[in-house]
Amino acid sequence: MTELLAPAWAATGAGALVGEHALLTAMLAVEVALAEAQAELGVIPEEAAKAIRAAAVPENLDPAAIAEGVRETANPVVAFVAGLTAAVDPAAAEYVHRGSTSQDILDTALMLLCAATFDRVERDLLATAGSLAGQVRAHRDTPMAGRTLTQHAVPVTFGLKAATWLHLVLDAVERVRRARAGLPVSVGGAAGTLAAYQEYAHDADMLRLPDLVARRLGLAPQTLPWHGIRTPIADVASALLVTTGALGKIAADVLVLSRTEIGEVTEERAPGRGASSAMPQKHNPVFATLVATAARQLPPLAVVLFQSMTAEDERSSGGWHAEWQPLRDCLRIAAGAAANAARLAETLRVSPAAMAANLRLTRGAIVSERVNAVLAPKLGKAVAKRLLAEASAEVERTGADLADLLDVDVPRGLLDPAGYTGLAGPLADRALARFEREELS
Amino acid sequence: MTELLAPAWAATGAGALVGEHALLTAMLAVEVALAEAQAELGVIPEEAAKAIRAAAVPENLDPAAIAEGVRETANPVVAFVAGLTAAVDPAAAEYVHRGSTSQDILDTALMLLCAATFDRVERDLLATAGSLAGQVRAHRDTPMAGRTLTQHAVPVTFGLKAATWLHLVLDAVERVRRARAGLPVSVGGAAGTLAAYQEYAHDADMLRLPDLVARRLGLAPQTLPWHGIRTPIADVASALLVTTGALGKIAADVLVLSRTEIGEVTEERAPGRGASSAMPQKHNPVFATLVATAARQLPPLAVVLFQSMTAEDERSSGGWHAEWQPLRDCLRIAAGAAANAARLAETLRVSPAAMAANLRLTRGAIVSERVNAVLAPKLGKAVAKRLLAEASAEVERTGADLADLLDVDVPRGLLDPAGYTGLAGPLADRALARFEREELS
Amino acid sequence: MTELLAPAWAATGAGALVGEHALLTAMLAVEVALAEAQAELGVIPEEAAKAIRAAAVPENLDPAAIAEGVRETANPVVAFVAGLTAAVDPAAAEYVHRGSTSQDILDTALMLLCAATFDRVERDLLATAGSLAGQVRAHRDTPMAGRTLTQHAVPVTFGLKAATWLHLVLDAVERVRRARAGLPVSVGGAAGTLAAYQEYAHDADMLRLPDLVARRLGLAPQTLPWHGIRTPIADVASALLVTTGALGKIAADVLVLSRTEIGEVTEERAPGRGASSAMPQKHNPVFATLVATAARQLPPLAVVLFQSMTAEDERSSGGWHAEWQPLRDCLRIAAGAAANAARLAETLRVSPAAMAANLRLTRGAIVSERVNAVLAPKLGKAVAKRLLAEASAEVERTGADLADLLDVDVPRGLLDPAGYTGLAGPLADRALARFEREELS
Amino acid sequence: MTELLAPAWAATGAGALVGEHALLTAMLAVEVALAEAQAELGVIPEEAAKAIRAAAVPENLDPAAIAEGVRETANPVVAFVAGLTAAVDPAAAEYVHRGSTSQDILDTALMLLCAATFDRVERDLLATAGSLAGQVRAHRDTPMAGRTLTQHAVPVTFGLKAATWLHLVLDAVERVRRARAGLPVSVGGAAGTLAAYQEYAHDADMLRLPDLVARRLGLAPQTLPWHGIRTPIADVASALLVTTGALGKIAADVLVLSRTEIGEVTEERAPGRGASSAMPQKHNPVFATLVATAARQLPPLAVVLFQSMTAEDERSSGGWHAEWQPLRDCLRIAAGAAANAARLAETLRVSPAAMAANLRLTRGAIVSERVNAVLAPKLGKAVAKRLLAEASAEVERTGADLADLLDVDVPRGLLDPAGYTGLAGPLADRALARFEREELS
Repeated sequence: MTELLAPAWAATGAGALVGEHALLTAMLAVEVALAEAQAELGVIPEEAAKAIRAAAVPENLDPAAIAEGVRETANPVVAFVAGLTAAVDPAAAEYVHRGSTSQDILDTALMLLCAATFDRVERDLLATAGSLAGQVRAHRDTPMAGRTLTQHAVPVTFGLKAATWLHLVLDAVERVRRARAGLPVSVGGAAGTLAAYQEYAHDADMLRLPDLVARRLGLAPQTLPWHGIRTPIADVASALLVTTGALGKIAADVLVLSRTEIGEVTEERAPGRGASSAMPQKHNPVFATLVATAARQLPPLAVVLFQSMTAEDERSSGGWHAEWQPLRDCLRIAAGAAANAARLAETLRVSPAAMAANLRLTRGAIVSERVNAVLAPKLGKAVAKRLLAEASAEVERTGADLADLLDVDVPRGLLDPAGYTGLAGPLADRALARFEREELS
Repeated sequence: MTELLAPAWAATGAGALVGEHALLTAMLAVEVALAEAQAELGVIPEEAAKAIRAAAVPENLDPAAIAEGVRETANPVVAFVAGLTAAVDPAAAEYVHRGSTSQDILDTALMLLCAATFDRVERDLLATAGSLAGQVRAHRDTPMAGRTLTQHAVPVTFGLKAATWLHLVLDAVERVRRARAGLPVSVGGAAGTLAAYQEYAHDADMLRLPDLVARRLGLAPQTLPWHGIRTPIADVASALLVTTGALGKIAADVLVLSRTEIGEVTEERAPGRGASSAMPQKHNPVFATLVATAARQLPPLAVVLFQSMTAEDERSSGGWHAEWQPLRDCLRIAAGAAANAARLAETLRVSPAAMAANLRLTRGAIVSERVNAVLAPKLGKAVAKRLLAEASAEVERTGADLADLLDVDVPRGLLDPAGYTGLAGPLADRALARFEREELS
Repeated sequence: MTELLAPAWAATGAGALVGEHALLTAMLAVEVALAEAQAELGVIPEEAAKAIRAAAVPENLDPAAIAEGVRETANPVVAFVAGLTAAVDPAAAEYVHRGSTSQDILDTALMLLCAATFDRVERDLLATAGSLAGQVRAHRDTPMAGRTLTQHAVPVTFGLKAATWLHLVLDAVERVRRARAGLPVSVGGAAGTLAAYQEYAHDADMLRLPDLVARRLGLAPQTLPWHGIRTPIADVASALLVTTGALGKIAADVLVLSRTEIGEVTEERAPGRGASSAMPQKHNPVFATLVATAARQLPPLAVVLFQSMTAEDERSSGGWHAEWQPLRDCLRIAAGAAANAARLAETLRVSPAAMAANLRLTRGAIVSERVNAVLAPKLGKAVAKRLLAEASAEVERTGADLADLLDVDVPRGLLDPAGYTGLAGPLADRALARFEREELS
Repeated sequence: MTELLAPAWAATGAGALVGEHALLTAMLAVEVALAEAQAELGVIPEEAAKAIRAAAVPENLDPAAIAEGVRETANPVVAFVAGLTAAVDPAAAEYVHRGSTSQDILDTALMLLCAATFDRVERDLLATAGSLAGQVRAHRDTPMAGRTLTQHAVPVTFGLKAATWLHLVLDAVERVRRARAGLPVSVGGAAGTLAAYQEYAHDADMLRLPDLVARRLGLAPQTLPWHGIRTPIADVASALLVTTGALGKIAADVLVLSRTEIGEVTEERAPGRGASSAMPQKHNPVFATLVATAARQLPPLAVVLFQSMTAEDERSSGGWHAEWQPLRDCLRIAAGAAANAARLAETLRVSPAAMAANLRLTRGAIVSERVNAVLAPKLGKAVAKRLLAEASAEVERTGADLADLLDVDVPRGLLDPAGYTGLAGPLADRALARFEREELS
């Protein structure tokens, strides 16, 4: 466990999804599936496949020895195969890893880790979406200040803001599902020709092998061996980027709205949560901070994954190797973000009173766009805008109400922020409708 | 024109796709579409929309003044709207940009630049795919050394290598098409509620406005205003990343294969191409270098686009602004890469003779995996592998042939590299079949 | 001019520092210095050097033809040399670029652009520092809320906050000066041996050539030719990263402090500045937004520069080429940020009244750390902290004053935020003292 | 241990330098130093400091509980302090962490991890430099092909190439030493005013506290508290970037030169090293691959560190938190790279015979620049260059020798590649001289 410096995913369970034990378990599953598929094709004895399955437990392996092997051979598979072979019934030993190559095992195992992580992420995104949908319904028409470039702009509703978050989460769900469905098995042999698989197989049609392995592992088939075609990794990266990007937007908004001076939302209080080592009064927005951390960390890591597409040769020296740890990191960061976002959405408390108070802060200037729309046809666009700009500056300087400063006749109700939320309601409904569709799918 | 330091896209036409003139043209198109859609809804007079269209030519604008405006208002739209308004028939001036906001105009205009660039990229990717498909057909069974971690591994065919490239290009085509189809219009008004659009419209249903604008511009509809939902930008980035990643892989391989010592492929000679300022004999792989440059540059730029998803508020201060130039850069880099890759694929010359010569370099060791597959059942896996490792080392040390060093009986034909290409042929056919499907779609 | 999508540097003059004209001028300066240094060494005739200097004006070159050349030869130098040679007196033509190679010219020219940009950046950083020093002096003891994780923490002073900004700016000044002083000339010839320079020179000691060129151009000498030693580029990147990082911190703080609800600082109003295309009342924090944009954009671009260190061979295919445009971008982004930060610092208006009002918002809880320090020795650390945590929660819930909720005897003055600013004053003085030292150096 | 997917540092010892145990040990050391410094200032009893030191062993802490705490409070310090406090003699418990804040402890502890890592990196860089210096001396005048854009350019020497590598390593040493010397202590208290430290201290001058802590820990003093001044992190990142960039260049060259077709260098054979899971003959360049992996991974991670400079407020929500894991990753990647580079340099075997054979491959064209220098004055520059370009193309096409194709009179010796290495020798000597200077310092 190395979580003390990993706020993005500490204590969320994300670490275990892609940890050493999960990895070794996945690598073993791949060797078993390869053996069983070869047995199904009649290429190796059924007994051998059984013996390999029997030996394929992580406890039979020595992680320290495999780590040493990483430094000797630049990948963990050579020593892993040696360990597995030693654990297998001697009669079956020669059938372990038959025809295979390190990259087949590791790439497929990594796809299995991606699958498990995507499943967890999807679950947590849907939980997040559920909580946000609740907020949309509860606050469909709760007015609040819309803010642009840090300044009050025009009114919006908290329903629309939460709908925006919900829409983003559903965007992530969609991309995670698509990426999950596309995770391919990797079966190519030493240089992507399946030559050794075929050599051992004599007459059997080894073009069928990858599909059989894929079916056993719950992965998608491959069209071509993809040792040198890293689109699957790029697709995983894209889905994770949208995930932390979407959740990071929510966190960014929560961090603003929970500022001491704004106070429109807060994370629910719980003993010890958000505590400071120094300041007794502190109730920090913890889940938002953790999600914001994830959103900062993931995009640069993904660069390595995209850049690895350009690796040279049938299998590269450095490009492939550079993928593993960033892929693991991206997976646990995204899974941690999804877990923490689910808690954030669940524990978010909303203060319509604070929203109302803040809406009054600019004493009418927040609806000057609306007043402009009324005055422009009367006074001309340029004159109206200048007049309102001057009046707003005076509001700011003097603390007067905008209404009192306008020497033009404007219906008082026009200046009520709650009356100028445009189509916020029906737009929020759209996000809810999408949520209901996605939830069923 | 600022192309002298931009080898990734210089002289490919990519610069003009997203240059100032293209941008202003697109922004004008958005204002026109907004006006015409509002006219269609009966919100502004038909005459006004006509007057706006009449004035909407880049020549009516002063780019230098707009650039000054960028520094005053942090975006080019405020001064642009002032310029357009001044150019319009005074009677129509008040209908320019009515109800709108800077981000609606700029986001939609950027989507138009994306559309034009994607169209160009798709065309060049298909041309590239066509040339590569030709190579796959011509060299389906041409054997060559497969290389892993820089060393000869087992034989492959040039057909399979070109099929790998083709598959990557088709992956890019698929993602570019999907991203192109999803490019949405952006119509939200000041804070995403469409409030001002609606305020001016009185009874008209302005929820219809975005769709009408989208239809006029050939863009996809939006579900919600996306000022704060930057998934469309992330999707563009993902598609471009796969594009330069895929093309970069081809370039990386070509750069290896065209090394003086390897010489298996070269770019076609043409007067002046690949010349050096110093060395008369130089014939550098220029298109591959240009594409490799693009593949190095794009991924980090895309980070900015993904990170901008996390921007705070209804519209952010810095997050949104940070997108524009990297988006432009990503578009022209990808378009340049596609153009240069098309030339690379078209001008690539293949030398089966060099491939054959290189295959003989290791004097049989390149098929030691195959020999191993034959010997392992006889001698046991571990013994066979050790024996071959020792023999291969001796081949390297002494220059002897592997066949002569084996004191086990092995059929001579077994050591012919051309006979050990596995399923390279049928796998290459798969890529061709995919190409034929994609070409038609 | 392509500034419309470049808020980080539009209209600051940064574009021209590294634009095509500046580049061609610098490349010409390098060719002239090379010729004059060779003349000084007696290797070419004085007359030839004079003729080359006479022809070395950008107007003699055709940028479009050079851009075409970039696509033919993967760099702008081959066509540039052809253009310059054509413009030179025929008798001197053979002495143009004698012994040289593209990378010598381009690398040295880029160092000249770095030098000019660093000089501008240093000037603007010092101006920024000057303004900030003024704020430190004016507000050395102005109390305000210190904020951590978005929540009021303990009081600080605006003097200390401005001192923090000042310290960061001085960090940037230091690194920019160091990087500026280290910018080396690049003279290596085709593969870094200076062989052709020496070949033409016969007996002259061409080890002296780089120093002579450096002296003429105001650059540092090189130890070795650095075609394959890209530390100088990395050093430039590091200095620019600290520059935009430092300025970005200031912008981030200003954006928080100028929020409508906080209002502790604002950018000075000026006609049109910070205007919106939609909302007449808007007075957006423009310079802070522009600087924040720069700080988001530069770090990913710098990745390309650092990664280019790893390029293969005497001169690489793609690594070197990938540097140029990101280097140009980093330079103009940093120069734009420095220019905009200078305006930000100059136009920043501070509101001690808003600071005081915000300090009262938590009704005493902001000094609960201090109360804790007083109570802990009496009640024990754990009991005191729990008591204060509960009281603070009640303050937040009920709006009561912390003082009224404590049933322990605490001197009233203890709860005055202005009395709990620790060592803020002397720390601010330290930053001022550093500024005074740096200003003189 | 989580090293199986971390080829950049697996089994090098780098993991332990920054692992959980090292972190907790460092955090404890900071609390001890704080207590002892406060005791020295007379602010807490000597006995209390002794009791804290006595309890400050990692075994007294529960890492799992601290990890849980990370999710509750967004940092590991709150739970860590609780754990330490519980372990301390009750009489001293109230003096634990007195006046302090989470960031003081964690930032200072991270600086201690940086210090330990820099020390290790420096040692391994010097070992690398020592091996490379040996190669420079041994092969000062060994000619080999210089390669640019993948093609033979002009001759160089292996001495100069190794000198280039040596120079890069010394650049890294210099930057690592400078960064090491600048690692500051972090003592600021809750918001950087040292207010609570001072509150508890009554009359003692707590401006002295940071210096006393720094001295105890072997760190540099701070000028200002740097919670919001992240230059120290940026400086660490810059030094690490130059380290992996420099080593990555060496690896990139080794990977090219050890290609099967080139074979000019190889890593020493050792049993099992560079083995493949599939191919018995394989002897992969393992250390170069591991170093290349590190060089690909580090730069994007460093982006997070530079971007964290821009965090808002006295202490940020997300910016600071995002630093920790990437900093740990950068440290272990760089330390792993240095360890692997030392092995690479130590085990590198050079083949002057292969170099000589490759030099002959272009049958004279590799010195066409030199022939050009001889012919240009006779025939004119343009004519000479065209003639040589044509002749070189014919060499490539027909396999003839360049000498035989020139119908101009050229001394035969002129075409000997070994005679055209320019100033490679004296330049190599310069790198050696620098090494000798650095070694002593």
